[in-house]
Amino acid sequence: MSLGIVFLSEVFGTAMLTLLGCGVVANTALKGTKGNGTGFLFVNFGWGLAVFAGVFVAAKSGAHLNPAVTLGIAASGAKEFVPGVPVDAASILTYLSGELTGAFLGAVVCWLAYKQHFDVEPDPANTLGTFSTGPAMRSHGWNLLTEIVGTFVLVYVILSFGTSPNQLGPLAVALLVVGIGASLGGPTGYAINPARDLGPRIAHALLPIKGKGASDWGYAWVPVAGPIIGGVIGGLTSHLPIVFTAAA
Amino acid sequence: MSLGIVFLSEVFGTAMLTLLGCGVVANTALKGTKGNGTGFLFVNFGWGLAVFAGVFVAAKSGAHLNPAVTLGIAASGAKEFVPGVPVDAASILTYLSGELTGAFLGAVVCWLAYKQHFDVEPDPANTLGTFSTGPAMRSHGWNLLTEIVGTFVLVYVILSFGTSPNQLGPLAVALLVVGIGASLGGPTGYAINPARDLGPRIAHALLPIKGKGASDWGYAWVPVAGPIIGGVIGGLTSHLPIVFTAAA
Amino acid sequence: MSLGIVFLSEVFGTAMLTLLGCGVVANTALKGTKGNGTGFLFVNFGWGLAVFAGVFVAAKSGAHLNPAVTLGIAASGAKEFVPGVPVDAASILTYLSGELTGAFLGAVVCWLAYKQHFDVEPDPANTLGTFSTGPAMRSHGWNLLTEIVGTFVLVYVILSFGTSPNQLGPLAVALLVVGIGASLGGPTGYAINPARDLGPRIAHALLPIKGKGASDWGYAWVPVAGPIIGGVIGGLTSHLPIVFTAAA
Amino acid sequence: MSLGIVFLSEVFGTAMLTLLGCGVVANTALKGTKGNGTGFLFVNFGWGLAVFAGVFVAAKSGAHLNPAVTLGIAASGAKEFVPGVPVDAASILTYLSGELTGAFLGAVVCWLAYKQHFDVEPDPANTLGTFSTGPAMRSHGWNLLTEIVGTFVLVYVILSFGTSPNQLGPLAVALLVVGIGASLGGPTGYAINPARDLGPRIAHALLPIKGKGASDWGYAWVPVAGPIIGGVIGGLTSHLPIVFTAAA
Repeated sequence: MSLGIVFLSEVFGTAMLTLLGCGVVANTALKGTKGNGTGFLFVNFGWGLAVFAGVFVAAKSGAHLNPAVTLGIAASGAKEFVPGVPVDAASILTYLSGELTGAFLGAVVCWLAYKQHFDVEPDPANTLGTFSTGPAMRSHGWNLLTEIVGTFVLVYVILSFGTSPNQLGPLAVALLVVGIGASLGGPTGYAINPARDLGPRIAHALLPIKGKGASDWGYAWVPVAGPIIGGVIGGLTSHLPIVFTAAA
Repeated sequence: MSLGIVFLSEVFGTAMLTLLGCGVVANTALKGTKGNGTGFLFVNFGWGLAVFAGVFVAAKSGAHLNPAVTLGIAASGAKEFVPGVPVDAASILTYLSGELTGAFLGAVVCWLAYKQHFDVEPDPANTLGTFSTGPAMRSHGWNLLTEIVGTFVLVYVILSFGTSPNQLGPLAVALLVVGIGASLGGPTGYAINPARDLGPRIAHALLPIKGKGASDWGYAWVPVAGPIIGGVIGGLTSHLPIVFTAAA
Repeated sequence: MSLGIVFLSEVFGTAMLTLLGCGVVANTALKGTKGNGTGFLFVNFGWGLAVFAGVFVAAKSGAHLNPAVTLGIAASGAKEFVPGVPVDAASILTYLSGELTGAFLGAVVCWLAYKQHFDVEPDPANTLGTFSTGPAMRSHGWNLLTEIVGTFVLVYVILSFGTSPNQLGPLAVALLVVGIGASLGGPTGYAINPARDLGPRIAHALLPIKGKGASDWGYAWVPVAGPIIGGVIGGLTSHLPIVFTAAA
Repeated sequence: MSLGIVFLSEVFGTAMLTLLGCGVVANTALKGTKGNGTGFLFVNFGWGLAVFAGVFVAAKSGAHLNPAVTLGIAASGAKEFVPGVPVDAASILTYLSGELTGAFLGAVVCWLAYKQHFDVEPDPANTLGTFSTGPAMRSHGWNLLTEIVGTFVLVYVILSFGTSPNQLGPLAVALLVVGIGASLGGPTGYAINPARDLGPRIAHALLPIKGKGASDWGYAWVPVAGPIIGGVIGGLTSHLPIVFTAAA
């Protein structure tokens, strides 16, 4: 498979991810929506099913949708991402740029789909929260730790799924994301994916959103660095002898 | 398979869809029900499982249950809907008429099952909302866009599932509908299916429902046109090289 | 397989069904429980997963767990319930008596598991509601209709699942029950199973429950007759040419 | 497989279990989290998905994650836990010590991930409740009975799943745990696992948690003894002729 296909596949899949993922937050958070105030379990299921849809869309490239997954697989020592796509600097950059591009685009479409509700939302924190994560209690060290733990769980368990494609596959990762969100999303809103946070944050900064406030760039490095660290640890530890099935 | 079988299959499947789908809205919205006020996630799961049941019932005809799916598959360039049923004007009209007929009938049965609660419901908006969708903030252009996006996601992801029947199949589409509803249902209540909206709206207009108010025909074209546009775009784009598995 | 095994299998499976099913209602309804007031979606999932567990336990006998299913299969013209168990008066009576016995026993164990909470529950309606269903608005005709519709959906869709054992099987019926509960449970609390309602009602009448009030025998025939009628209609119509896979 | 691998596998899997399981309680219970007050169904799904993740991680050793499962399988008369690991005193002690160690470690990581929220939580009952279970109404006899019933259901149904690994496997046990929690978790918070309760309780006692209060050691034997009794009964009764598939 060409790297061009990999790029497009990750763009489309990650766009699907943030379109639906940012969408469920918009639905519960923005003024006047039909799902306003539905709550945290709703957000967990919405993000889980956003992953579910994104994995189907990007199945051809292995559906990373997440730099932490790409780097975690690389750290695991895998030789190929998918058949014919060796793990090297070119393919890694292709995945990362596709993921970031897709995450940006999905957030733009989400903004259009909820345009009227963004227009009337009075609280800039809700508007930003629809795009990107923020901490419940701000402390970069502890927030970073929480993101490391959550992303370690994501990558470590994904690598334990085995490499053979299976029908539960997209459902398994979707349920895993529901679970990580429910269990470890309390302190930071579980970015667990640098592209998912940074792409929409760039969209927030660039789009002409009414009364949007600042994009909180001071925090932006945490949901990038934390997931990368957690994902790499997850990949490195996937060689422990207890792991069920090693990555390809 | 004869077109008569296709017609009946879609009638039964789509009737199951709107019976259960309108039912979950009735349960949360109408006065005095046991599920009154359960909320939006409840509606998302109810509609998703309505699709789940409908897909099993109409499996023989491929379980479109939705003109946007029928037209999306046609737009994808597929040669057959199911083995022995070529994509042509006759089969398309058979699917569409079966879907609309079934959607109407399911809504009638839903009304009967909740008859006592319709009789005491004081708010005509709740009564209409049980049958058909309406916008949270009325603006035909933006509402149309939201329906286009939601239905594009539906059809594009369904076409990425591949064509081989599998056991996760009905569950996959059910979960996809839960996800679209949670994530993109906030502005318009996610018709994402012209038959699902128009059939019950006709039922609303014709049935002798106590204090029912108007059927909001001024909005009725939006949840018809939006899903058709979104579905056709989904079908056309399914030929992009990134898609996992092309439709038959 | 001997009818004795069938009987025991249905006893254990249906006991599991009502233990967990009555349990989730106890958890949301009775005073002082940890799940008090969690609501209707919680009850839907609890009952669905009660079916899930019960189906695994009674898989050997085909896991009817429900006279409406037994009679629906018989009405469908099936020759055998499971290999070696022909559909005849003796086997039907074995299934029905196993189901009723199990439903009674499961409710007794549920009462023991929640004994302290039954002891302090001040409202007899909550106590009875933990055991058996009751109408939101009492009208035997309309309540009967709702139970007929709900049980028709249950049996008709189950018969569309096909007869080959599969791994999604128990999950499919569990999700179907979640969906029927969410969508059609609003008016009557969805007995959709004569044993599930009558067995626990007998337990309610016999057990020395503090301040329990009456067992509402005037309504008791509705959740018996409605499901039987709906199940038989579901079985009879399973021969329609549209149905995916006929029962064995 | 060596007992060392079994030990590490159970440590990692059970650590994943209590990390995510304690995490979801922290998210709904502790002050200032994003999921604060989401409720009981949220906790049920969180714990179910904690099991889901843990089962993948510890698949190599059969993913007991729970002394009640280990002892239940032993009581069932099984000859091997997994191929090459005979059921004997050495392997049982390996499983039990791995489970307890993992459960302790997972709770420690959970505390770190939620450190800031533990620091500001004013109610010691919420802090302890994040680690270990406690009764809604304290009565050691009735509480013990509830834990016996819940764990019996867990082990009995798991043993009915059959022994061949399958793709629904981890999902099946996850859904079972969601169901047991929803249905039988009301009186005691469903430990149904001695390691899940005792390991985190030891962590609670040892960790320097701000304002943590007592670890309620007077109750600690109930969620150890109850699950052991229930699990052994489940294993012993798995030989009843009705059970679908006996353990290996």
